[in-house]
Amino acid sequence: MIGVVGGVGPYAGLDLVAKIFDQTEASTDQDHLPLALLSVPAGIPDRTEFLLGYAKDSPAPALARVILDLEAIGATVVGIPCNSAHAPPIFDVIREELAQAGSRVKLVHMIEEAAEFVRAMHPDLRTVGVLSTTGTRQTGVYAATLGRRGIDALMPDRAVQEAVHGAIYDPEYGIKAQSNPVTPAARESLLNALDHLRERGAEAIILGCTEIPLAITEKLIGDAMIVDPTLILARAMIRELDPEKLKPL
Amino acid sequence: MIGVVGGVGPYAGLDLVAKIFDQTEASTDQDHLPLALLSVPAGIPDRTEFLLGYAKDSPAPALARVILDLEAIGATVVGIPCNSAHAPPIFDVIREELAQAGSRVKLVHMIEEAAEFVRAMHPDLRTVGVLSTTGTRQTGVYAATLGRRGIDALMPDRAVQEAVHGAIYDPEYGIKAQSNPVTPAARESLLNALDHLRERGAEAIILGCTEIPLAITEKLIGDAMIVDPTLILARAMIRELDPEKLKPL
Repeated sequence: MIGVVGGVGPYAGLDLVAKIFDQTEASTDQDHLPLALLSVPAGIPDRTEFLLGYAKDSPAPALARVILDLEAIGATVVGIPCNSAHAPPIFDVIREELAQAGSRVKLVHMIEEAAEFVRAMHPDLRTVGVLSTTGTRQTGVYAATLGRRGIDALMPDRAVQEAVHGAIYDPEYGIKAQSNPVTPAARESLLNALDHLRERGAEAIILGCTEIPLAITEKLIGDAMIVDPTLILARAMIRELDPEKLKPL
Repeated sequence: MIGVVGGVGPYAGLDLVAKIFDQTEASTDQDHLPLALLSVPAGIPDRTEFLLGYAKDSPAPALARVILDLEAIGATVVGIPCNSAHAPPIFDVIREELAQAGSRVKLVHMIEEAAEFVRAMHPDLRTVGVLSTTGTRQTGVYAATLGRRGIDALMPDRAVQEAVHGAIYDPEYGIKAQSNPVTPAARESLLNALDHLRERGAEAIILGCTEIPLAITEKLIGDAMIVDPTLILARAMIRELDPEKLKPL
């Protein structure tokens, strides 16, 4: 069974489940893969606050707990639709906690999968833009993961980075506060940031926070391929559970 | 915790979760209610086939099993986003199985909630149209539930009923085969059926199959209020778990 760690944020969990269903070969209810979503956000400290050092409590133990609960009801392949949770200060601790608990789940790494996808689909790409929370950015997880594949990660300038962070976290217009529909202000900030990265030479741009694909659904902007790690994670999870059920690209 | 019985069908489960999130007062991830979705469609026989007598196996034991699994991971308020599952030949057996297993979950009854909502919001309504699968229709569950509140349920003529059933189940263009996006053919059949019921005197119309709101999102067509039981179920589940989190209508 597929297990989805929801709540980080709730709508990103839903978006991942929708993409898993969309990418599954199915023409009846019964054709779909078994899946559990566990969305218990109240107990999971904010990832960005922790990564930036504003909050002491790591979300890692709570995330590991959710994964173990999913495993207890049958999940064998698990994904976390939150880029920030894949930064080593969080993800490495989750892996340790799972190992200590004797977990046998296959925990798919969204950022490794996204980098591998970009490299495999476009072997000649040199510069890839990344939009993310400031916390994810500061851990350098995308820069390192892309760098290992010979790709330069291009991040926005400071002012644009702050606007991206606001599009996600602003308590009035941010996507975490208003997800369905997303506010025009949040979408506008993200579109500006995409233009900014394209002008600075990004050949493709990764939407490196799972709230961003709720606002940006374009697959191409100008010449730049827009890469959605939630979609890549969805496909990787199907591949790990039952590759015959995976729709062709 | 809220528990959602998914897989009947998978996208209807997702639609219910989206509506629960949408109807929750929340401006951060952590404000959202705890929720589990368990979508294991392969083990749940088709509800309509059973109700029409085409298949011998009742979906009730498998649905009860999912509810017990949700309860085991902490669900206290559970909903099944499938109208057909609320027909007495299925729902009564689910209740019996839960009682025998000593379950303490609050299982919200979507059709009772929908009928109560219509009565409370529009005390003067006399005739309410119902679009549903042929299986749900033949059990008379909507006619009985509305009838107890002094409302006449109006069903489509035979040819239109068959078109509605096709919009849901057709292996080529039906919503269960193509949910995201729904095909124009499925939406067209449902819009025709809505017009048909309005012409015959329906003052409001209940979308009495959880696949239908995936195609019809209008709240009003002509003078007729369009009633979405998935939305009503979402609100009822929040009310049962934590009424302070329920957004005003």
